Amino acid sequence: MRKIEHIGIAVKNINDANHLYEKLLGTKAYKQEIVESENVTTSFFRVGPNKIELVAGQGGDAISKFIEKRGEGIHHIAFDVPDIKAEMVRLKAEGFTLLSDEPKKGADNKWVCFVHPKTTGGVLVELCQEISTT
Amino acid sequence: MRKIEHIGIAVKNINDANHLYEKLLGTKAYKQEIVESENVTTSFFRVGPNKIELVAGQGGDAISKFIEKRGEGIHHIAFDVPDIKAEMVRLKAEGFTLLSDEPKKGADNKWVCFVHPKTTGGVLVELCQEISTT
Repeated sequence: MRKIEHIGIAVKNINDANHLYEKLLGTKAYKQEIVESENVTTSFFRVGPNKIELVAGQGGDAISKFIEKRGEGIHHIAFDVPDIKAEMVRLKAEGFTLLSDEPKKGADNKWVCFVHPKTTGGVLVELCQEISTT
Repeated sequence: MRKIEHIGIAVKNINDANHLYEKLLGTKAYKQEIVESENVTTSFFRVGPNKIELVAGQGGDAISKFIEKRGEGIHHIAFDVPDIKAEMVRLKAEGFTLLSDEPKKGADNKWVCFVHPKTTGGVLVELCQEISTT
């Protein structure tokens, strides 16, 4: 794992949260994106080599359920990996449970795979690999 | 804010968690440290330019209370700042509530200040500045 790619934060309203995080981070979101497969809206802020991803649900999705249960707050940590398939094999062999057998297309041009928080001490971990455009 | 300095993760038992995170991150903790002022034990892992901090309470402290209420999991995001006092002034002026009026001595040789999660959409934010040794 090369770095923290981003921290995902569950928010109720993406516009209100964008405004709040602009003030907190002293910078504007560089991208807003709907992830159809997850039924969520995301926005991204750069903080040096890392990013903050705000994620708002549209009802019935995983983020809306998270907020109903725990309120707004930190949702996941995403790590940048050079080879997501190799990392998935390594983590499985170490006893971690993956939430998909193959990488899925996530936000911000990434292949992603989540690791079940029951196997990581309550932390939802995401693996991310940039989708090559070549 | 220059980068995510670390993510703080609340754990019940520091030895069990060290073992789990060694497997997850593929690297060993580079430091274990007791923070007397907070009554917690911490350990740190490097992930490129960032760190993961595991934090275990010793009973009656903020981490033990967090785990009682929400279970183990992500506790805070810490941002590296070049001038913590200037950042505290900026955030106060933006309407954020700080948990101390002056920076405090935190783990891993840092001046730290926390921002109240009620003003940051449920996210406990820590500002960190390396303590100069010169």
